[in-house]
Amino acid sequence: MKLNKDMNILIVGLGLLGGSYAQSLKRQGYKVKAITRSRSSVDFALQKGWIDDGTTEVDPQMIGEADFVIIALYPNVFISWIKENQHLFKSGAVITDVTGVKECIVYEIQGFLRQDVEFIAAHPMAGREVCGVQNSDEAIFRGANYIVVPSEDNSEDAIELCEDLGWKLGFADVSKLSPARHDEMIAFLSQLTHCIAVSLMCANDTPGLERYTGDSFRDLTRIARINDEMWSELFLLNRETLLQEMDRFRTEFDRLYECIRDNKRDEMRDMMRLSTERRAYFDKKK
Amino acid sequence: MKLNKDMNILIVGLGLLGGSYAQSLKRQGYKVKAITRSRSSVDFALQKGWIDDGTTEVDPQMIGEADFVIIALYPNVFISWIKENQHLFKSGAVITDVTGVKECIVYEIQGFLRQDVEFIAAHPMAGREVCGVQNSDEAIFRGANYIVVPSEDNSEDAIELCEDLGWKLGFADVSKLSPARHDEMIAFLSQLTHCIAVSLMCANDTPGLERYTGDSFRDLTRIARINDEMWSELFLLNRETLLQEMDRFRTEFDRLYECIRDNKRDEMRDMMRLSTERRAYFDKKK
Repeated sequence: MKLNKDMNILIVGLGLLGGSYAQSLKRQGYKVKAITRSRSSVDFALQKGWIDDGTTEVDPQMIGEADFVIIALYPNVFISWIKENQHLFKSGAVITDVTGVKECIVYEIQGFLRQDVEFIAAHPMAGREVCGVQNSDEAIFRGANYIVVPSEDNSEDAIELCEDLGWKLGFADVSKLSPARHDEMIAFLSQLTHCIAVSLMCANDTPGLERYTGDSFRDLTRIARINDEMWSELFLLNRETLLQEMDRFRTEFDRLYECIRDNKRDEMRDMMRLSTERRAYFDKKK
Repeated sequence: MKLNKDMNILIVGLGLLGGSYAQSLKRQGYKVKAITRSRSSVDFALQKGWIDDGTTEVDPQMIGEADFVIIALYPNVFISWIKENQHLFKSGAVITDVTGVKECIVYEIQGFLRQDVEFIAAHPMAGREVCGVQNSDEAIFRGANYIVVPSEDNSEDAIELCEDLGWKLGFADVSKLSPARHDEMIAFLSQLTHCIAVSLMCANDTPGLERYTGDSFRDLTRIARINDEMWSELFLLNRETLLQEMDRFRTEFDRLYECIRDNKRDEMRDMMRLSTERRAYFDKKK
């Protein structure tokens, strides 16, 4: 099953990501409606022409007509929203999300969800250090990765639809991971990096430090401007896995520390060469 | 004393930085010559019109005519070069550098240098993860910081000349730090960030990881592509200070680790808010 222009697409939550989804899908001629908390977000998206219709209420008709529901809310709010409103879904509807952790939500949702609708998880690896629909920009998907995160219970149809959404949004790569593997990857690639940036920023209160900085510090701490509500929730929802990845990083950091302390230049250079070699794989696809 | 167009400027070492200095100064009409190891670097710079003349030999006449000598070599090579060739310097010449550590070189050089020439240290906080004059580009100075690092022995004239060089090269800010303070700042802002990037890159050998990455990991590890010869030398030359800064970072990293482990969400959010607030100072000046 692929996305098609007869489908009614409903986006719940017009933030940075929800808004960027709407912008991209509407530009390509899909039918897009939205439900979100604030009136100004609805107005902004309507004025930009990113949605056909929008509301701040739980509109039974809008939900009941939707074939494909994309929920772009924070994890806890998101689960409650489905719980409270699942009786309104159209039979056969497919529901997906954008949440940064999966194991703790996928099985819970699939556990309580009506049998005639299907939840298929996905994680767009795109974002900015600012939030809100006013900062939405479908350009954030360019060169970025999209991960579909099916459980054993998902149908081929829903997986295919979700993969197709990733491609249509303009992501450079669409891949598939189990919830457990996804959470491991994200703990290392995304959560750990945010932990590092925050720790680095907290570690030094020298005034005027910014006069002496180079780009390396700027790059490492771009994400130190962090949405504390969302990220503290994400960290705690993936606690065990994140702690493991933090341990893993600290082991290597301590090894480098010892190389410096004990003047082991060869071992240090080996680490640097391995690092250089591995980093080559991570250049963004153009 | 300011830079002027009658001065003979000599650049020793046409790498990424030396080449970018040459490009910028020559474009502005200064007289620039260069001594460097490889013939192809001289030819490249001549062909680009970045130097008036260049050689791969230690040319006594070229050195003897230079009023301002900018040495852009790795730290150890750099000290030997001055030792071996200082008898050739013009009386009254000012010598500066681009090296990333200062305490271990400034006093040594000022200790053995002829009394009728002056060494004034400087650190351009600009670079790229590639090297060589072929990658030179004066655009790297735009928005970047330039630090002049005088000791008690430096004259006001030499300090002013060096500051003027920073401004003329197009840096966004020119500041002044003592060698000890410089090394502390750089240990935190530059060396520690490279340690983190290398450790992060070494911590996970899962194949295909790049398919799941977002920009945060890419940004944190851009500098993980690292010149192992230069950086291992810089780390060891600033060992004690760097180890202190690594400790400082680890203290905060461990605190965040405990917040996650012990479910201390409020403390975690406090760290994130402090981080967000401090990061605002580091945006690049346009």
